[in-house]
Amino acid sequence: MFKIRSLAAVLALAGSVSIASAWETLPTVAPAPEDNATTAEKIELGQMLYHDPRLSSTGTVACASCHNTMLGGEDNRPNSMGVHGQTGGRSAPTVWNSAFNKVQFWDGRAASLEDQAAGPVTNPIEMGMKSWDDVVARLKAIEGYQQAFEKAFGKEAISKDNATKAIAAYERTLITPNSPYDKYVDGDKAALTEQQVRGMDKVAELGCTGCHSGAAFNGAGMFQKFPVIANGYFEAQYHFKKDKGLAEVSKNPADEHLWKVPTLRNIALTAPYFHNGSVKTLEQAVALMAQLQLGKELPKEDVADIVAFLNALTGEFPKQKMPVLPGTPGTTFN
Amino acid sequence: MFKIRSLAAVLALAGSVSIASAWETLPTVAPAPEDNATTAEKIELGQMLYHDPRLSSTGTVACASCHNTMLGGEDNRPNSMGVHGQTGGRSAPTVWNSAFNKVQFWDGRAASLEDQAAGPVTNPIEMGMKSWDDVVARLKAIEGYQQAFEKAFGKEAISKDNATKAIAAYERTLITPNSPYDKYVDGDKAALTEQQVRGMDKVAELGCTGCHSGAAFNGAGMFQKFPVIANGYFEAQYHFKKDKGLAEVSKNPADEHLWKVPTLRNIALTAPYFHNGSVKTLEQAVALMAQLQLGKELPKEDVADIVAFLNALTGEFPKQKMPVLPGTPGTTFN
Repeated sequence: MFKIRSLAAVLALAGSVSIASAWETLPTVAPAPEDNATTAEKIELGQMLYHDPRLSSTGTVACASCHNTMLGGEDNRPNSMGVHGQTGGRSAPTVWNSAFNKVQFWDGRAASLEDQAAGPVTNPIEMGMKSWDDVVARLKAIEGYQQAFEKAFGKEAISKDNATKAIAAYERTLITPNSPYDKYVDGDKAALTEQQVRGMDKVAELGCTGCHSGAAFNGAGMFQKFPVIANGYFEAQYHFKKDKGLAEVSKNPADEHLWKVPTLRNIALTAPYFHNGSVKTLEQAVALMAQLQLGKELPKEDVADIVAFLNALTGEFPKQKMPVLPGTPGTTFN
Repeated sequence: MFKIRSLAAVLALAGSVSIASAWETLPTVAPAPEDNATTAEKIELGQMLYHDPRLSSTGTVACASCHNTMLGGEDNRPNSMGVHGQTGGRSAPTVWNSAFNKVQFWDGRAASLEDQAAGPVTNPIEMGMKSWDDVVARLKAIEGYQQAFEKAFGKEAISKDNATKAIAAYERTLITPNSPYDKYVDGDKAALTEQQVRGMDKVAELGCTGCHSGAAFNGAGMFQKFPVIANGYFEAQYHFKKDKGLAEVSKNPADEHLWKVPTLRNIALTAPYFHNGSVKTLEQAVALMAQLQLGKELPKEDVADIVAFLNALTGEFPKQKMPVLPGTPGTTFN
């Protein structure tokens, strides 16, 4: 289900790598795995499945409910609300640009978007389906899905494997290019304000980009320990260490508090912050990251400059058509 | 908030009016009230508001959550699920073609789509906002909404009145024309099967169209008593009389069990049936209506024919663009 990286390999020394000369713009196409080439038919089916609340036990929760494609790709909540109003312990990561994550979920336990898509559907506090067999049975009863799966994958193609492949193919189209940052890197020097350029320089100088590297500012599939520096005062407020990250799954003490490096793209739209959504503002998130990861107490001006820069990472959201979901005559959810 | 019709006026004698010669197709444009002319800008804003979960206390429930515009305009549940997983006592009516209802809500307590739109937002078990002042304050904090309201209504226009006007303007575009029935009435005699034509004739002969009249099969703003005929056996199963309908609001005993006549358009997609969603299949719904409203026990073949006809009332769902909702930097919902 996931590969555990060695601690040595994943703990890149924050601040030791200058990438000031390597600012990258966001690609407009995401790479697809060999066994799931992106096609228009898969994208269309995937968009339907992604927005279909009938993939949940109650008929009320779709992928899009918590990872909202009309907004910043999540729900602006500390923890998402699944079936029957239940909440879990982690904050929904944005679906936008998730195609550029090498690993998925906060703890990086899924190696692909396909793997990830399978999880929430049968999670009892998220979409609450008893099994994927039940999901497949539900989809098979819907004539319009029989046709859409056939178009995308061939005859009698409704399966967990194909459903998650279609969802992943759709998610690979959820890319937000042309942020002010991208325009600036592409040569439009007026795209950023002076303050934003100062913030950009500080992000590199301070070492934020040691982990938040690459076009999506999410490292190259990198895991990172968080918090690196123990701080009882902040821990008492934010309870960051209550959740052990990757170790919750691997049960390996070496993986305690290891997390996928999250993207900084569109971060201004995705409050609250951190894996448990305990921090409400970007200002506080930046100040905490500097203290807990880099051991630096930033002056207010530096925080303001970095936040200004982070606001320049909000991209253009692509125009989408609204899916028309095929009806199920006679279906009732309880 | 609503007008109480006299009992005599609303209780049209079912079966006494033959409208066999008056089959009407669905108009493709809905009339708008004088003080809320439909404009492209209002429709665009209304579509955004309709799909925005930030109109709920938890940030999880939009109008579209229960009245799903990607499906049959509702949620296929006996009772919808509002904030914190709460459920009420009535089944969500479809939003499709609701522009052709003269009154809104199951009990008809709202005289317009504008009036209706104001209700669920502050209903504690639906969208759970404490007040419309809170909604307006939230919208005012979102820059993109300031612009969208200005385009639709002019400067500093964010208000309850304008928000509900925009939502209503959008809802007036949610029309599903060109059902097989419409094509048949328009002269395409191959659009219906023989069984569907038999069902259509029986619907008129039996008197269903005494109440379910007009282009949307919803009467002309008509209220009707339901059930007309007392039946302890069915009551024990379905509890139709537990909810007193219009009398719950008017407190007038003469209004007990008076309901808005619901549209039959797209009814095949909107199981389960009746105000409390207690009946799972269209077959059972048709049989119960014949017994409880017309005092007739229908042979199975008649039920099958009528159900076949009702399936011919599923229209074409218009293609919509997906709204891009303006972000709220720094917003958190709990």
